[in-house]
Amino acid sequence: MNDEQAENLRDLLVSRSTAALGTLHDGAPYVSMVPFALLAELPAFVLHVSRLAAHTRDMLSEPRVSLLISASEQAGVSPLALPRITILGTARPLTHDAPESPVARQAYLARFPDAAPLFSMGDFSLFLITPAEARRIAGFAQARTLSAAGFARAVREGRE
Amino acid sequence: MNDEQAENLRDLLVSRSTAALGTLHDGAPYVSMVPFALLAELPAFVLHVSRLAAHTRDMLSEPRVSLLISASEQAGVSPLALPRITILGTARPLTHDAPESPVARQAYLARFPDAAPLFSMGDFSLFLITPAEARRIAGFAQARTLSAAGFARAVREGRE
Repeated sequence: MNDEQAENLRDLLVSRSTAALGTLHDGAPYVSMVPFALLAELPAFVLHVSRLAAHTRDMLSEPRVSLLISASEQAGVSPLALPRITILGTARPLTHDAPESPVARQAYLARFPDAAPLFSMGDFSLFLITPAEARRIAGFAQARTLSAAGFARAVREGRE
Repeated sequence: MNDEQAENLRDLLVSRSTAALGTLHDGAPYVSMVPFALLAELPAFVLHVSRLAAHTRDMLSEPRVSLLISASEQAGVSPLALPRITILGTARPLTHDAPESPVARQAYLARFPDAAPLFSMGDFSLFLITPAEARRIAGFAQARTLSAAGFARAVREGRE
């Protein structure tokens, strides 16, 4: 991935605030909407989810998950041309004493200041999703598979 | 679901042209972006996918899939307030001689006229996704589960 492609990917990830989360639910895929923040240094995605939600129970019983982050639909632009990325990764709950907890919380609240009251509710908790592989589609017929290391290089670039 | 709620759901489904499709991929969830059309009468969702794509192979080996259709992100609106719906359903490829094939093709092309050239390419084919259950979130803390019959009533209303 060259500099311009990596920059386009970072732009997508920081310009969007929601992702489609795929979890395994009773043996079948289940897709739900989640707000997310990116920890570019790790890299990892931060979610803040309710223990009452199906996706949270799903992640606890099967950590393999997927995230889709897609550019906004635009009138006059073919949907197949929309830049997007699918992440395949593993999810884990962050306990309060986890080393990543403060930075994850900070990143999430920086993006979603309105979520602060939810942090004092017992049934919400942070999850970290670590990419194992990614499928980047930059536009029509412009697809490539990225390894965890390739994804990390692309999102960290300019930050090191 | 009352009339207003059903109308809001129909508005969401006709105003959006892409969904997040969850498939089972090597035993794990995989989320990709797909353009879709709605056949309200059945009801079913119409996809037009390439045989070369991972999600197509996934649907052929495991028909249980999920679709997320979500309102557009809006500045100043909490992501958790965004109206959305998760569909749990089954996918099946439509052969040229399937009875639903003409209406599915027509519905898809009415929504995506630019896709016409893809219909003459051998590696693209239509799939129909039939909902078995749905999880509708109309806004923050406004969630309800819909049966297949409940979903059908909501999307058909006003068309019969």
